Amino acid sequence: MTDTASGTTYRTLPFDELQDFTRAVFAAYGYGPEDAAAIADVILRADLYGIESHGIQRLMRYHRAIRETKVVRVDAVPETVFETPISAVVDAQEMQGQLAAIRAMRLAIAKAGKSGIGMVAVRASSHFGIAGYYSRMAVEEDLLGVCMTNSEPILVPTFARQAMIGSNPIALGMPADPTPFLFDAATCVVPRGKLEVYAKRGTPLPEGWAIDETGAVCTDPQRVIDAITARRGGGILPLGGAGETMSGHKGYGFGLICDLFCSGFSGGPFSNHKKDDSAKSNTTHFFLAMDYGLFGGKADIRAHFSQFLQELRETPRAEGCPRVWIHGEKELESEARRRREGIPANDKTLAEMRRIAADLRLAAPW
Amino acid sequence: MTDTASGTTYRTLPFDELQDFTRAVFAAYGYGPEDAAAIADVILRADLYGIESHGIQRLMRYHRAIRETKVVRVDAVPETVFETPISAVVDAQEMQGQLAAIRAMRLAIAKAGKSGIGMVAVRASSHFGIAGYYSRMAVEEDLLGVCMTNSEPILVPTFARQAMIGSNPIALGMPADPTPFLFDAATCVVPRGKLEVYAKRGTPLPEGWAIDETGAVCTDPQRVIDAITARRGGGILPLGGAGETMSGHKGYGFGLICDLFCSGFSGGPFSNHKKDDSAKSNTTHFFLAMDYGLFGGKADIRAHFSQFLQELRETPRAEGCPRVWIHGEKELESEARRRREGIPANDKTLAEMRRIAADLRLAAPW
Repeated sequence: MTDTASGTTYRTLPFDELQDFTRAVFAAYGYGPEDAAAIADVILRADLYGIESHGIQRLMRYHRAIRETKVVRVDAVPETVFETPISAVVDAQEMQGQLAAIRAMRLAIAKAGKSGIGMVAVRASSHFGIAGYYSRMAVEEDLLGVCMTNSEPILVPTFARQAMIGSNPIALGMPADPTPFLFDAATCVVPRGKLEVYAKRGTPLPEGWAIDETGAVCTDPQRVIDAITARRGGGILPLGGAGETMSGHKGYGFGLICDLFCSGFSGGPFSNHKKDDSAKSNTTHFFLAMDYGLFGGKADIRAHFSQFLQELRETPRAEGCPRVWIHGEKELESEARRRREGIPANDKTLAEMRRIAADLRLAAPW
Repeated sequence: MTDTASGTTYRTLPFDELQDFTRAVFAAYGYGPEDAAAIADVILRADLYGIESHGIQRLMRYHRAIRETKVVRVDAVPETVFETPISAVVDAQEMQGQLAAIRAMRLAIAKAGKSGIGMVAVRASSHFGIAGYYSRMAVEEDLLGVCMTNSEPILVPTFARQAMIGSNPIALGMPADPTPFLFDAATCVVPRGKLEVYAKRGTPLPEGWAIDETGAVCTDPQRVIDAITARRGGGILPLGGAGETMSGHKGYGFGLICDLFCSGFSGGPFSNHKKDDSAKSNTTHFFLAMDYGLFGGKADIRAHFSQFLQELRETPRAEGCPRVWIHGEKELESEARRRREGIPANDKTLAEMRRIAADLRLAAPW
């Protein structure tokens, strides 16, 4: 299969095979079977959802972080440095982000079970995959879940010329029928990976995605990528785009709020102080689980909200548009399909997986 | 003073004079002096901030709601219908929105004082002015504050053709030095008032603000306004604009989240079931106050966050741009200036205030 837009060739791998391989990779780093399975589950959830950038494509970055730069510590034991019945601050001691995040969300869920709400801020963690994985953990316990993380700076504040804020996703999940509401959105307008796709294709960017090192809106993807890489300035615009005409200052504010909860409350560095992959990542996260029974009968609240979602689904479509979606529907449908049909892996990712397998003396089935 | 863009003439009124008048108006409706002063304070805060749409320009709508349609009840006594140590649901019994909101945020603040966090969802309320007023109440108690409200439907979900969600602002305030972080953003790209300004001027709208009744992006402000008014469809796009190219689905999600907290948790109607001004407004709100000492020493957290804000202020500007702002700075600077220099009132608003004064047999100084 070839993606004609980017010229990349894909091969579809059965989900089970990929799951076995990913688990074996993390077991080979020294993780116990439960931890290896947990990390693999987060990574493959991204591929199941169709979020290629956060799935197996990232295996090589994790491999380098554990084996080469050693900025992720396999033997890390996270430390709770501050705690109340409804909150905690955890120092993850440079643990693999997925494990730090799963433990933190479990702690938030346990607190919500006892006190109605639990909030956990985490510092000294590393890249944890998709934020929406952890908010969905709360949803699976019939709770409202929130998850945020900071990241290397990529978002340029309104009227600035260099990135000061991470892609800073905010994920929120809420139980509903027939499917939960699963919102997960970077607060910058698009992820960096989209710029790379446009650069590969040689197509200009839509106006309002990115700016160059002078702060001017720039539609040349390679120029923006070069400026970011050389740390000359430039970056991706906040949700809402450049300036204030399309309310880019609102996206900038949502990104800032994400950093407040993750870094402000954990005591870790804000996004603008984060380094690239070769240095200690020191990523910060925030997790919240809340029993929505704090506001009355859960069945009533759930039915009332589900009815609203149904009315949104059934509202007339714009001419020429296929469907009005609820957040999470596309991902859940993709997950069901890809569990059956397999996950597309591109050539570069396949080659990286073979290299990882060779390094770890594992059999790669491809 | 004439606003050359819209052709509207403004006269500047001293703040104290306007405050006396607004208090007298609400006292004349039957509110005690404290309540009248509280309502006036919220309304005039909008004018001080420079948010004309939510200030004295709304006096006539409140006047009609209290005197003509009687959808706001001056003698309303709100009822707490569900309560836990950290949460409550209040039925405001069609109370003036500002009073319902101030009481609800005070309740959230009291709960935060005892338990670290307080969350209050309100139903059967009415238009409460600017959401940022109430999150700032928490900030003034050295707490993090959140406030949201739903409103008549104006936001069209991604790929839909009619408004299903309110302007649904999300306000969040956090103490910081030298000034607090005060974020307050409608989740639609622009407020309806902006369309009216463009219609008056006869200028086309920027692409990505609004759609017509077919769901197509429309730059003719009058066509959009007519479609909305006749309930033929059309409306304002979510933050991020039309479709998914600029991530309009994220703004749609933030708007939906606002309705979940306000309507989902209070049991009131979601925005798509709200009626126009002549019917019971049945507005829903959500308030949260949180002691950020739940995450460690408050002085340290505040200093750490303030340092980040300072780094944002000092980041190099884009070429040709005046300044990188922190959310709330523009409003606080406008407030200081307008307390000294007065508040501009346009001709139409002045005429409405004279009519209100005549109705209530009050002296209008203008």
